[in-house]
Amino acid sequence: MGVQGKRVPRAVREQQMLDAAVATFARRGYRAASMDEIAEAAGVSKPLVYLYLNSKDELFTACIRREADALKAAVRAAVEPDAPADRQLWSGLLGFFEHTAAHPDGWTVLYSQARTVGEPFAAEVAVMRAEIVAFVTGLIAAAARDADCEAADQSLADREVAALAHALVGAAESLAGWNAGTTGPGRPSGKESAATLMNFAWSGLDNLMTGHRWTPSR
Amino acid sequence: MGVQGKRVPRAVREQQMLDAAVATFARRGYRAASMDEIAEAAGVSKPLVYLYLNSKDELFTACIRREADALKAAVRAAVEPDAPADRQLWSGLLGFFEHTAAHPDGWTVLYSQARTVGEPFAAEVAVMRAEIVAFVTGLIAAAARDADCEAADQSLADREVAALAHALVGAAESLAGWNAGTTGPGRPSGKESAATLMNFAWSGLDNLMTGHRWTPSR
Repeated sequence: MGVQGKRVPRAVREQQMLDAAVATFARRGYRAASMDEIAEAAGVSKPLVYLYLNSKDELFTACIRREADALKAAVRAAVEPDAPADRQLWSGLLGFFEHTAAHPDGWTVLYSQARTVGEPFAAEVAVMRAEIVAFVTGLIAAAARDADCEAADQSLADREVAALAHALVGAAESLAGWNAGTTGPGRPSGKESAATLMNFAWSGLDNLMTGHRWTPSR
Repeated sequence: MGVQGKRVPRAVREQQMLDAAVATFARRGYRAASMDEIAEAAGVSKPLVYLYLNSKDELFTACIRREADALKAAVRAAVEPDAPADRQLWSGLLGFFEHTAAHPDGWTVLYSQARTVGEPFAAEVAVMRAEIVAFVTGLIAAAARDADCEAADQSLADREVAALAHALVGAAESLAGWNAGTTGPGRPSGKESAATLMNFAWSGLDNLMTGHRWTPSR
């Protein structure tokens, strides 16, 4: 190993390799991306990539796990835990869309690549998705309990809460996927997407069309 | 070819093979499903399956196309074209969820199998999805124009209409995927899912939690 290899700690090198791999997988697709390209993009030799990450499969799995962990952490960090339900939902959506807008390659790997390459990668993403759905289910259930204090006979059934969580997560994924596929000035900002989805989810299309929007300050 | 083979027209036999293939792919997954199983489920010989459908790849592609065409036709047939926007959306959602509830294997093939097996199958589904998004975009744009007559300065921007269509389609896909993975008496009916999503999309969570629901008769 050369002088340069000794100067850079392994953990730092690995992150550089994963950065290069995420960008390459997102742009070229899993199958077309070569270990040569990834090594070149990371500025290291191909044997070093194999030494650290073992195989293309393991490298891809490491990319999925890192991007999934980063996304989950961004959403959890963004949510204001003791705020009213609409603020919690707004802050969570903002965290999701700002993270995916800032890391479009990471989102492409999770949303498009990992699911279309086949098992076992799709299963990795399914685990992350189940965790996010569970988190959103808890958020909606808490909001429904809060609202329940005011309207005791109107509580949402558990099954409907779970259904709404699946609908909301699917809506967010789909919108983030559309954003990641849109380039140039036409791509909405994270904040813009979060506002669109918040209005859709919280206020509904009827209110949106008649100009009644949810605002953070109301 | 035996007497039985001569009695059944090719078109009918092919549909029987596709029925058996959709059920087998949905239950076992693309890779695990064997042509032996599919032939047995269809009540025909394996050589006949190859004679009609050529290969496992082509059989899977034929399944995707048939299920995608049937789903698009069901949604288009369900929408009441001259009804108010909320009725059109409700009838379209009802068509979507009743079709996917009646054909859970077909939905599993489209939503889970085709996207996770890899290209070129994922591309087939992407085309169907783009058509459905375009259809929903037109529906929301028309609804926004109608609402615009009443509130002239509140029109939705084209970009927001497209974003809402992506959100709505993602929500419907996610909910149908959850339904298809739920078995037994806990699985919501097509009408129940359509009502959940209609309330979510049209009225928003705020109205839902305070007991204000959209109803077809309002």
